[in-house]
Amino acid sequence: MNNLKQILEPKSVAVIGASEIKGTIGYAVFFNILTSDFQGVVYPVNPKYNNIMSVRSYNNVGEIPDEIDLAILCIPKNAVKEVIEQCALKNIKGAVVITAGFKETGNEGKKLEDEIAAIAREHNILLIGPNCLGLVNTAVNCSLNATFAIGMPHKGKVALVSQSGAVGIAALDYAQQHELGISKFISIGNKAVVDESDVLEYLIDDNDTTVITMYVEDITRPTRFFEMAKKANAKQKPIIVIKTGRSIRGAQAIHSHTGALSSSDTAYDSLFAQCGVIRVTELSELFEYAKGFTCRVEPKGKRVVILTNAGGMGIITTDAIERNHLEMTSFEESISKELKRVLPAEANIHNPVDVIGDADAKRIADTLAIIVKDKNMDALIVSIVPTIKTNMDEIALSLCKIAKENPQIPILSNLMSLEPEPAFEKVLEQANIPNFSFPEINVRTLSVMINYYESIKQTEELPARYPVNEEQVKAVLQLVRKEKRIRLSEAEGYKILEAYGFKALDYRVAKNMEDILAATSQIGYPIVMKILSSDILHKVDVGGVQINLKNEDDVKKAFTTISDNIKKLKTGTNIQGFLIQKFFTGSGIEVIIGANAIKGFGSLIMFGLGGTLVELFKDVSFRLTPLTKQDALNMIMETKGYQILKGYRGHAPYNMEGIVDCLLRLSQLVTDFPEIQELDMNPVKVLEDGTSVVVMDAKAILSGEQQIV
Amino acid sequence: MNNLKQILEPKSVAVIGASEIKGTIGYAVFFNILTSDFQGVVYPVNPKYNNIMSVRSYNNVGEIPDEIDLAILCIPKNAVKEVIEQCALKNIKGAVVITAGFKETGNEGKKLEDEIAAIAREHNILLIGPNCLGLVNTAVNCSLNATFAIGMPHKGKVALVSQSGAVGIAALDYAQQHELGISKFISIGNKAVVDESDVLEYLIDDNDTTVITMYVEDITRPTRFFEMAKKANAKQKPIIVIKTGRSIRGAQAIHSHTGALSSSDTAYDSLFAQCGVIRVTELSELFEYAKGFTCRVEPKGKRVVILTNAGGMGIITTDAIERNHLEMTSFEESISKELKRVLPAEANIHNPVDVIGDADAKRIADTLAIIVKDKNMDALIVSIVPTIKTNMDEIALSLCKIAKENPQIPILSNLMSLEPEPAFEKVLEQANIPNFSFPEINVRTLSVMINYYESIKQTEELPARYPVNEEQVKAVLQLVRKEKRIRLSEAEGYKILEAYGFKALDYRVAKNMEDILAATSQIGYPIVMKILSSDILHKVDVGGVQINLKNEDDVKKAFTTISDNIKKLKTGTNIQGFLIQKFFTGSGIEVIIGANAIKGFGSLIMFGLGGTLVELFKDVSFRLTPLTKQDALNMIMETKGYQILKGYRGHAPYNMEGIVDCLLRLSQLVTDFPEIQELDMNPVKVLEDGTSVVVMDAKAILSGEQQIV
Repeated sequence: MNNLKQILEPKSVAVIGASEIKGTIGYAVFFNILTSDFQGVVYPVNPKYNNIMSVRSYNNVGEIPDEIDLAILCIPKNAVKEVIEQCALKNIKGAVVITAGFKETGNEGKKLEDEIAAIAREHNILLIGPNCLGLVNTAVNCSLNATFAIGMPHKGKVALVSQSGAVGIAALDYAQQHELGISKFISIGNKAVVDESDVLEYLIDDNDTTVITMYVEDITRPTRFFEMAKKANAKQKPIIVIKTGRSIRGAQAIHSHTGALSSSDTAYDSLFAQCGVIRVTELSELFEYAKGFTCRVEPKGKRVVILTNAGGMGIITTDAIERNHLEMTSFEESISKELKRVLPAEANIHNPVDVIGDADAKRIADTLAIIVKDKNMDALIVSIVPTIKTNMDEIALSLCKIAKENPQIPILSNLMSLEPEPAFEKVLEQANIPNFSFPEINVRTLSVMINYYESIKQTEELPARYPVNEEQVKAVLQLVRKEKRIRLSEAEGYKILEAYGFKALDYRVAKNMEDILAATSQIGYPIVMKILSSDILHKVDVGGVQINLKNEDDVKKAFTTISDNIKKLKTGTNIQGFLIQKFFTGSGIEVIIGANAIKGFGSLIMFGLGGTLVELFKDVSFRLTPLTKQDALNMIMETKGYQILKGYRGHAPYNMEGIVDCLLRLSQLVTDFPEIQELDMNPVKVLEDGTSVVVMDAKAILSGEQQIV
Repeated sequence: MNNLKQILEPKSVAVIGASEIKGTIGYAVFFNILTSDFQGVVYPVNPKYNNIMSVRSYNNVGEIPDEIDLAILCIPKNAVKEVIEQCALKNIKGAVVITAGFKETGNEGKKLEDEIAAIAREHNILLIGPNCLGLVNTAVNCSLNATFAIGMPHKGKVALVSQSGAVGIAALDYAQQHELGISKFISIGNKAVVDESDVLEYLIDDNDTTVITMYVEDITRPTRFFEMAKKANAKQKPIIVIKTGRSIRGAQAIHSHTGALSSSDTAYDSLFAQCGVIRVTELSELFEYAKGFTCRVEPKGKRVVILTNAGGMGIITTDAIERNHLEMTSFEESISKELKRVLPAEANIHNPVDVIGDADAKRIADTLAIIVKDKNMDALIVSIVPTIKTNMDEIALSLCKIAKENPQIPILSNLMSLEPEPAFEKVLEQANIPNFSFPEINVRTLSVMINYYESIKQTEELPARYPVNEEQVKAVLQLVRKEKRIRLSEAEGYKILEAYGFKALDYRVAKNMEDILAATSQIGYPIVMKILSSDILHKVDVGGVQINLKNEDDVKKAFTTISDNIKKLKTGTNIQGFLIQKFFTGSGIEVIIGANAIKGFGSLIMFGLGGTLVELFKDVSFRLTPLTKQDALNMIMETKGYQILKGYRGHAPYNMEGIVDCLLRLSQLVTDFPEIQELDMNPVKVLEDGTSVVVMDAKAILSGEQQIV
């Protein structure tokens, strides 16, 4: 569903519902288009008027004698359907429905919206909204402000896509006050037809846009969004997103650890992380980082030089560098020597360079010229406080000169001023030098930039498929469905895992004492006896597990105990028998690996160390299927438990390859069988000797509803 | 060293080094005082001039015929000493030395600064600086701008104390752009005589100041600062601090876990936390929270109501509420009912209240009038986005009216505007309604306010002293000093702990096999045998520990093994014998408790659960001595380990009282004996049965230097 070109770069626009009454939306939209230097033709449509603001008006869109690229609807909601039909007749392919009162107001509104969307789709009308603010294109060959609430922002490289009109207004407010130029603004509203992924597709190809910012409350089609984001990465167009409604989670019952620890918000976090999208927490960050990226120079590393005329700012910035895990450049000796030559004795010729309070523009320019020669600098932050000596306009100009002469160095500035609207801010913007109010913002922004460029470089291909036995899994799942269950028994869990190449702890299923003894003689003492039931969620809690059984006597006693405990269970509890396993005492470390299907996203794969403390610290990591090998490695490395796995305090490292293998196989399994709603392997033992990784327990639940004991 | 009244509220000021040459500091300071509507008399002093800006000038301060309250020095650094002597002769009691080039430039400068400070002290001159920006007092009966770099900020309730002049400028820049009124600004520079605690003492009594903000790179006298902060709490004057140089730590060798995990920054964190000072990370927060507190209404709880005209802002704000651990008010039924009456059907009559995009000032005022009647609201956040219907000035006025009628409700607003300098911001400031650019700032600020008022309410008395045996500790420490050691042996560690009422695991010191067997027969098998040496830091690493010795045979073998290992040690290693302890298998949970003396601060007491994982997660907490009972409880509760201690997954809670007791006894011990540099009890076992808390190992190091094996 694209291309949005005709909507965002129309040659002719009809404003349906245009009005002469000030304070109405129809007035504001028409007025804005008429006065925003629009390079095409705008046609007011309103049967009540002969002309609007001296422009000939039409009774309906059909009457317009020319072709129309874009219709903007600011009419009562009950008229929208009919007007969209008129647009279809007129063969208009783009529409922006500003009118509100649809899905956001409840079921009735949703029904009307769905009807309208259906008509639009039938006639290939790209429809934006309803319930939106409109759109803006600042390109000189278009210059369109088709919104009802805001003035024309100044032209720049940042596109803003917003599900909320209000956030769009706030953004343009920030943009105006902080010299942030805008390329496009698109208020997508209820997203009845066109959604954020469609807009993304357009913006990726839009040469006027180098940074994309988004406010979204949900992503309509995560898979398509992922695809688009990858395309944006290929063009090095960063996407910065604020996604609200962090805490919302479905009412769905949770059966597994993985389920309990994951959420739709985890899914969004993973989605964004896996496709290089920068997710921010606060609105201000959205705009700050966007401004940072207008710098458009990729930092080659993490080593930063700070230049300031104030010791305090140097310290504050250095602190921020450390807090954000960046590094301070150590100057080559020749640089410090040269600095010593041009700076007064009280100055600091090491990083952070302090040219001290009586520095004028020339001293700052001289210092800059020396610093940029250092080979160990990946980025430069310049923090200048106004003094009686600082001519900020001159300083800004030297910065621009240095930036031009050294296009490989990202320069971020923090020139302060006591003036309300200093001129140098515009100068810096023109030179792609982002200027911020506080030095900590420079550092945070730089850190985000560095992480972004690093993340989009990671290799991305999916690993080759493992050869697996899909038929075996199908057979198990069919049986479960046939028995109208959603929970797999432990043995069934092992079966599907084994089919995908997992190694489960050796087990036998036994129906009675005779079976048990036979199984025991095959496995060898000591053994563990577990109740086998797809109805029991927590075997231990119902007294269904007996461990370390060393001889026949132990086994018989355990059998009696478990059997007695079973009798106390709710009648109708489905018991499949007993599971006999070796009582495993081999040394190793326990990890938990799981999967949880999230509607629309695929499955979240989880990894963490086992044990109570880990649970307490929630030291687990998530990625969405399908996993790349890099994803799997990242999952392990971003847990604190990684410190233990890689060899803590002289301990040999554990078999990380084996864990990666498990994560990838699990990814393949739940991708092949999306009906697996939750799957917990807890614990999985990574053997000390590095030979193997063994699944010690498994819980699996299919999608659907079932009463759980 | 106070009172600073005559410096900050002078009737007569001499500007020594005043000048007519634009661009000099002497010009700027004199010009600023002369033009800032100063209510006293200003005298220029400079032998080069007959008059400065038409004001009669004097050759030196001694020539001035009147009394002088305050001398401001903007003269070359080599003249400062002599001029301070002249001030002393003239009986001037206040001086601000703006001149730089002292301590900040190295040893020579430091020497000069020390000499000047000595003269000032001798003559009871309160000296601010050197190397400072000057000071500002906006009070109408004073109106003094004695700085060289900034214009007069507008009058308000926030005082700013800054060790860096530059940060002061940045602050006043923010203040000007964000309608934050200033009461006093004091640039304290090198703090040769007057430090932040002195200024604090003055500001606590200053009725024009209700919020105190500080930029410091160190606190000169932590104990006095603590005292002053407590006084500020009694007056409910919040102190907000940005303390930089977070990562600086001394070169001192570290012997203990506590030492390794603590730092001077931890000490600052603890200092601030224990006296209710709000520490912030970024400069912007300093000003944001200061602005928040100008609201001057204490939130009675955490339940917030949000009113907005934009759904997106409602969602963003709700998200922020959750992230900051605040709560959303659930309206009483009657409130929602009334809201339903005045709001359109599409509005949200529940919290967050959304009056929707076509709301005008009247609808907002009506809604406000209803909302404030709810009994479950502790604070109100109003976020209004500009639309064609919003008259922000009118909306601001309704807010002011509501604030006046409901003085018990803290109101924070987020009225946005597309104007560069909207008038309503001044209106809101006058009404003590802090207005911010983004709704998340409102929430963060409110959360800081709530935490502040909670923290200053905590009861604060120190617990009664435990009866202890100080003589026993003295004897041990004397012996250690006599032997020119700094490390105590394990047995000596137990001795000083036992003297302070700790229960150590039963132990005997043995010199030879005969002693060992005698000790064993008293303690009973199984036992642990440890090498006893104040020279050995890690007993296990040198093969000096043998555990679980079950009989005489085991003991003899262990004796041989340890003796053999000792022989491999460096010659001269001081061996005090063997330590025999019960091999303790009683069940319980291991914790680590320690102390680390930080120069100027007292000791940092540390608490955490034992074990590798806890170490990995750095899940430990710190407080400075002397501890209150509440401090000790807070220490336990702020670790994640607390979840386990209070009873995890059905386990009975552990003996928390016993841990608190240990923390308080340790606090008493290291307060009584500040020469104890580091002390680790690791592990301490909190017995399952709740009977006792047993120290299983102890390391103690006294201050001083010693070669460690």
